[in-house]
Amino acid sequence: MAWNSNLRWRLPLTCLLLQVAMVVLFGVFARYDLDADAHWRTEKQRRNVSSDLENEFYYRYPSFQDVHVMVFVGFGFLMTFLQRYGFSAVGFNFLLAAFGIQWALLMQGWFHHLEDKYIVLGVENLINADFCVASVCVAFGAVLGKVSPVQLLIMTLFQVTLFSVNEFILLNLLEVKDAGGSMTIHTFGAYFGLTVTRILYRPNLEQTKERQSSVYHSDLFAMIGTLFLWMYWPSFNSAISYHGDSQHRAAINTYCSLAACVLTSVAMSSALHKKGKLDMVHIQNATLAGGVAVGTAAEMMLMPYGALIVGFFCGIISTLGFVYLTVRPPSLHKVLQTTCYVLRPPCCRWGG
Amino acid sequence: MAWNSNLRWRLPLTCLLLQVAMVVLFGVFARYDLDADAHWRTEKQRRNVSSDLENEFYYRYPSFQDVHVMVFVGFGFLMTFLQRYGFSAVGFNFLLAAFGIQWALLMQGWFHHLEDKYIVLGVENLINADFCVASVCVAFGAVLGKVSPVQLLIMTLFQVTLFSVNEFILLNLLEVKDAGGSMTIHTFGAYFGLTVTRILYRPNLEQTKERQSSVYHSDLFAMIGTLFLWMYWPSFNSAISYHGDSQHRAAINTYCSLAACVLTSVAMSSALHKKGKLDMVHIQNATLAGGVAVGTAAEMMLMPYGALIVGFFCGIISTLGFVYLTVRPPSLHKVLQTTCYVLRPPCCRWGG
Amino acid sequence: MAWNSNLRWRLPLTCLLLQVAMVVLFGVFARYDLDADAHWRTEKQRRNVSSDLENEFYYRYPSFQDVHVMVFVGFGFLMTFLQRYGFSAVGFNFLLAAFGIQWALLMQGWFHHLEDKYIVLGVENLINADFCVASVCVAFGAVLGKVSPVQLLIMTLFQVTLFSVNEFILLNLLEVKDAGGSMTIHTFGAYFGLTVTRILYRPNLEQTKERQSSVYHSDLFAMIGTLFLWMYWPSFNSAISYHGDSQHRAAINTYCSLAACVLTSVAMSSALHKKGKLDMVHIQNATLAGGVAVGTAAEMMLMPYGALIVGFFCGIISTLGFVYLTVRPPSLHKVLQTTCYVLRPPCCRWGG
Repeated sequence: MAWNSNLRWRLPLTCLLLQVAMVVLFGVFARYDLDADAHWRTEKQRRNVSSDLENEFYYRYPSFQDVHVMVFVGFGFLMTFLQRYGFSAVGFNFLLAAFGIQWALLMQGWFHHLEDKYIVLGVENLINADFCVASVCVAFGAVLGKVSPVQLLIMTLFQVTLFSVNEFILLNLLEVKDAGGSMTIHTFGAYFGLTVTRILYRPNLEQTKERQSSVYHSDLFAMIGTLFLWMYWPSFNSAISYHGDSQHRAAINTYCSLAACVLTSVAMSSALHKKGKLDMVHIQNATLAGGVAVGTAAEMMLMPYGALIVGFFCGIISTLGFVYLTVRPPSLHKVLQTTCYVLRPPCCRWGG
Repeated sequence: MAWNSNLRWRLPLTCLLLQVAMVVLFGVFARYDLDADAHWRTEKQRRNVSSDLENEFYYRYPSFQDVHVMVFVGFGFLMTFLQRYGFSAVGFNFLLAAFGIQWALLMQGWFHHLEDKYIVLGVENLINADFCVASVCVAFGAVLGKVSPVQLLIMTLFQVTLFSVNEFILLNLLEVKDAGGSMTIHTFGAYFGLTVTRILYRPNLEQTKERQSSVYHSDLFAMIGTLFLWMYWPSFNSAISYHGDSQHRAAINTYCSLAACVLTSVAMSSALHKKGKLDMVHIQNATLAGGVAVGTAAEMMLMPYGALIVGFFCGIISTLGFVYLTVRPPSLHKVLQTTCYVLRPPCCRWGG
Repeated sequence: MAWNSNLRWRLPLTCLLLQVAMVVLFGVFARYDLDADAHWRTEKQRRNVSSDLENEFYYRYPSFQDVHVMVFVGFGFLMTFLQRYGFSAVGFNFLLAAFGIQWALLMQGWFHHLEDKYIVLGVENLINADFCVASVCVAFGAVLGKVSPVQLLIMTLFQVTLFSVNEFILLNLLEVKDAGGSMTIHTFGAYFGLTVTRILYRPNLEQTKERQSSVYHSDLFAMIGTLFLWMYWPSFNSAISYHGDSQHRAAINTYCSLAACVLTSVAMSSALHKKGKLDMVHIQNATLAGGVAVGTAAEMMLMPYGALIVGFFCGIISTLGFVYLTVRPPSLHKVLQTTCYVLRPPCCRWGG
């Protein structure tokens, strides 16, 4: 039986095929980082480090778990605000992220260990893989309800690959200074999602517009996603900063920027509404812009007021963009809404 | 156009004004703590500290994130149990907390650095700001559905100010020994909320009583809030304890008190119901009393059984209070219910 | 009034009785571990340890909080997928876990301190108590909707006792090497739940079958449980591993196994559905099998591909089991479904 001829077998075979490929590639290429290897203890004695705490695990693991929650609960539930897709949003996000992190570990590993025999995996790699997948989640937000799981898996395969190539070119070849988040990588994630939506765009999709209305309970579920993204963003921006003061400063800056962003988002959302009411979709999305925007510079000596200023303008611009780019003529509606959505949220970064 | 004459512009202008004020005040007064400053590395060498881990960040950051979740998800969703206000509860809680943490950083900072030129911010300040905002969240629970966002922002402004003044008088001037939570500060938060409700109390509000009924899904959302508050309370009570055994002990004591409180709350809730059934509102609220009550003494050598005894009586008293103070004559109904609610949950503390 | 004659007083009296017993037993037997005791600072100086960070608290507390979330939010909400029982699921799970952790602290403590006067409690004990309660939560999943709160408390009392006895016999008497999770302990948890269901099984319960249908919002709530279990499983498997590389490796192995498991679960769920659709109940449950299966060996040098292979087969076997063991003749339906459910999820382990 040809698998293409029978739609029913596509998803199972794609999943199994991809997973078998992962097993083989991990078998050939992936080993443990020294900090996760049984030889670490010997090495530690050799280097005369006295404490078990001097393992990368204790510097990064709490932040890793926060980022992990952002990818799976944060992005998953953020998208439940579209009533009809609530369920697919969480489920498909789970599927693509589970595949994406495996493929990102390999792709990012290859580019980072070009001349080594093996990729070595530690907690920092897990964080970077989650970052890369976050950019896929953003693009997923743009295509939600328009694609099948198989298409999503293929999109993930391509996006993670291009993400890693782009990252390698910028950081290693062009030697762009890209401390923390990096606008370039954020923008990459955004434009990838936009491009996919353009390709998939068909006029008759307008007919399904009413499916995008949000309802009470869906909004509360979406708030779960929003809040976990908002609360854990300081971990996102500080997860792979240098040890010590850099990690500390990145967390404080992000905290300040996010707080300022909430107030200006609320202000703009209310000002732009005819009756001065708040639109929950603005709040759910614009409040996160502060985290994205401060990402690039989070570990710099911005000063708390610098971070507040970033958040201040982010909340305004993001809400303005959301409102004015989405009320234009219907034929452009979907694409622009997508752009707007995509240009807002977070992506990914590669540090260390 | 005079902004007072036009209701519509009140919220946007209040938000923008407050946020601009925050930016200016942070610009004039706030700088990084040494542990979050780029000079930390030099200072570390001078002090001959060998490890990057000796940064306050690694002692406190995981607890900070837990407290952050309690303030935004915990308190936000706890209040969704009022069916009609579910959405406002989460959204307004988000708004007031985002403003409150900024203002608390300043107010608490000024009182702590009376003779310094600058306030210096580190992870401990972020935790203390979250504590202060938690007391505002409690008062918010008392006025939910009765106030506009603008009123909430003004209430936050006043409460955070008074909180900091009260804290300064008690801890610095009267030199009250107030390890950990402190009954005095808890009580402050409670009575503030009560006072606001008294001021806002109007008899015709009784008519909206049916809006306070809870429904199935609202209750499940409220359980999300309850559980995150309950689970992370050990982090709340240990977040700013002294390093080492004090932090460890505070977490264990709170864990024990909370566990005991669940059983006695269930016992009382069932005993006080005509048919022996459980009232979910009791469970959602009384179970948290154990965390509040043990707060003051959490880092003392209470012994595990001491903590259990605290939780034991808390569950009983809190449920009794909830039941007997809320079935009295209608005219007193609202105020008493508020008292009861307010006297129960948590507040804030200032340690270190 | 005889308490047996009046059903209404059963629950309050059981709760109060159990809690009083806990207070007395903790008073007689439980004290703080040295790391949580005020004498720790002296002891530290004697041992010439320079840093406060060398307290077990900083090694284990973030993992403890993750495990705590798994037990209360993870298991609680996982079971809301049964529409009618959503509320009882979360509430009763809360009650039994709050009692279970106290009793587990005592039982596990007695077996670990057979010749000492006191049980000493530290963060590692709290984690082990959560592990033990997780096995009760699994069994609870099997009896949900068939038992009263009083029966649940009694079941918890027995299961925690037997769990600790079983653990003692295997680890201390038979000296079974049981690094990490341990299949034996997992299996214990599973068969206990199965046995209870057999005892409680009555044919007429089939009539209530329609109550087990799941609905849209219940499924979204259940996904909250699933995702928190899935995301925090690396913490579960690494929480009580040896310091340093073991803990690091256990987290990486679990992460890999879980990711692989998602893809093969989706593949099998879709392949076994007549129209190739996904069954959310499979995804919600089978994806967790990867965490259980890798538990025993999580801190061994499995290599990342080894962990992927474990997850690969787990996803397949678990979904197959779920489908083929639940469509048999109605009389066996409940028991088998239970087995299947019970044999899947996680349990408990005892390390260190």
